Amino acid sequence: MQIRDLGEFGLIERLNAMVTQQRRGPDNGSAHGFKLLVDTGDDTAAWVSGAATELFTTDTVVEGVHFTRETTPWPDLGWKSLASNISDIAAMGGLPLYALVTLGLPPETEVADIESLYRGMLEIGEKYGVAIIGGDMVRSPVAFITVALTGVRQGNPMQRTTAQVGDKVAVTGYVGSSGGGLKLMLEGLAAPAEAGSHLREAHRRPLPAVAEGQLLSQAGVLTAMDVSDGLADDLSKLCLASGLAARIYGEQVPAHPLLKQAFPNDYLDLALNGGEDYLLLFVAPGPVMNEVIPALPEGAAVVGEITGGPAGQVTLVSASGEEAIVSRSGWDHFG
Amino acid sequence: MQIRDLGEFGLIERLNAMVTQQRRGPDNGSAHGFKLLVDTGDDTAAWVSGAATELFTTDTVVEGVHFTRETTPWPDLGWKSLASNISDIAAMGGLPLYALVTLGLPPETEVADIESLYRGMLEIGEKYGVAIIGGDMVRSPVAFITVALTGVRQGNPMQRTTAQVGDKVAVTGYVGSSGGGLKLMLEGLAAPAEAGSHLREAHRRPLPAVAEGQLLSQAGVLTAMDVSDGLADDLSKLCLASGLAARIYGEQVPAHPLLKQAFPNDYLDLALNGGEDYLLLFVAPGPVMNEVIPALPEGAAVVGEITGGPAGQVTLVSASGEEAIVSRSGWDHFG
Repeated sequence: MQIRDLGEFGLIERLNAMVTQQRRGPDNGSAHGFKLLVDTGDDTAAWVSGAATELFTTDTVVEGVHFTRETTPWPDLGWKSLASNISDIAAMGGLPLYALVTLGLPPETEVADIESLYRGMLEIGEKYGVAIIGGDMVRSPVAFITVALTGVRQGNPMQRTTAQVGDKVAVTGYVGSSGGGLKLMLEGLAAPAEAGSHLREAHRRPLPAVAEGQLLSQAGVLTAMDVSDGLADDLSKLCLASGLAARIYGEQVPAHPLLKQAFPNDYLDLALNGGEDYLLLFVAPGPVMNEVIPALPEGAAVVGEITGGPAGQVTLVSASGEEAIVSRSGWDHFG
Repeated sequence: MQIRDLGEFGLIERLNAMVTQQRRGPDNGSAHGFKLLVDTGDDTAAWVSGAATELFTTDTVVEGVHFTRETTPWPDLGWKSLASNISDIAAMGGLPLYALVTLGLPPETEVADIESLYRGMLEIGEKYGVAIIGGDMVRSPVAFITVALTGVRQGNPMQRTTAQVGDKVAVTGYVGSSGGGLKLMLEGLAAPAEAGSHLREAHRRPLPAVAEGQLLSQAGVLTAMDVSDGLADDLSKLCLASGLAARIYGEQVPAHPLLKQAFPNDYLDLALNGGEDYLLLFVAPGPVMNEVIPALPEGAAVVGEITGGPAGQVTLVSASGEEAIVSRSGWDHFG
């Protein structure tokens, strides 16, 4: 059987089962006072070390699969390569710390382009307090960038596994603008200047929600993940991890007015499935939501609730009350 | 200018200068009591956190560049992908802890092959106490594997920058066997059964020197790195980091008797330039060497000494006293 038949998530499930069930050996971590807190399967792994909880994540982009040089100039690619990892740390309520950068590059790559890439990484590193402290560089017929990032927080991270039936589901900002920006560029569409600029900027320079993640966690939110593959699919993954389902209300999904202006017919589809928003999706009982949302500098929008039902199923309820299943298992990168 | 013109090490030097000189921002690490101890440019990065020194490294292999499925079956590829990272932790005198595994894979990859790959990773993980606790999986036209690994130790790591003129240079085991195994397979050469088996095993299942690294560091050795690109080139990198040169004596370079048997004419070349040995190269004053070598379970061989001269230059002295410069700047993966 090939990966394209089993699917990415089927393979990940098999490999995660292997590493957690067949893991043996001396366990160096516990011998040194480290205690594994979050194993494979969440936004980051986590362990306790002394007074701190340490976080550890990695994310990779491949040219032609996740980006093209046309839609993502080198400095923006640098920014985004770190942003996607910072966003995973944010989803655990952590502060990002140290990064290792791996570059796979064809020998004919321009040195000036790689310096531009690093300039973008340094810009977002400066903004979020992340230091690049090493990495690896290898020759490769296709360009790819892998970032591994550590983070820190006190106490238990927010996780995907802790949703409860009846909890409300919310997002920390407008979804779909990044996907709208990509669609504008890929299809060479015209848009009013202000809308075009907002959407392209959302795609090229996403702002991970580190401060929001810390506020949410301090306010007692236990369940969160970042929105990277689209609200519908990411909510589906969160539900799957918690063994539950969810319902979202189309009218409550927050799409930016400029996204609606540029895509009056497609904005809801982009808001649900666009990807690369790097906001936080979080889940909490109603009373917690009522307290935490006003405490967020830019607020958040309740978009639905957690329900029983097939694990991972997300149902969209339209303004007229019609229901449609919008996601079951997350986006398959190999499909 | 393209990377192939500037060379890998020229580019790494430029990027390292960018990240260390242009790094700004809030520095989350120090705000949380972390103190950066070893910045980019050594076998691993390192920081102090509470009572522990934490280590952080990453290493990548690309199909067709670093391995082929013919010479490295999937389980061995899994073993080696972790081994090269464990070896970097060993070179700092640390104990490896937690790994993230990133796979870039074509959709037509067989699921059973990836399960074999993970089986090899779990085998070496079990042996060395490393737990795989997450990662990433992406579609890619070319297969690649990136491992990011953390480690831990007490106190200051061994580094590349601390060699002194007059220090002795030693290695913890036989060099060149891995390169000999690869040469046998690539060229389809015949070798006596025992030799063939030793050399292929050395190539496919290297054993990083974690215990040796800890013993060396405890015994007061300050300077080490792992031998991954070949003794000559790795010694050259160590010398460059310390701003010094070195001299090695061909007759003292430890080649395994079975390597000599299989390659009576090429064994010294393989021992100097073979790569993927994953032993430790270490440097210390004579009296320290005299104390530490007998304390190592398998001993070590003194192969030369640190000298003044052009930074990074390694000179080979033959049995008859002839001198030849064998390395200046490390292996260029893009050349």
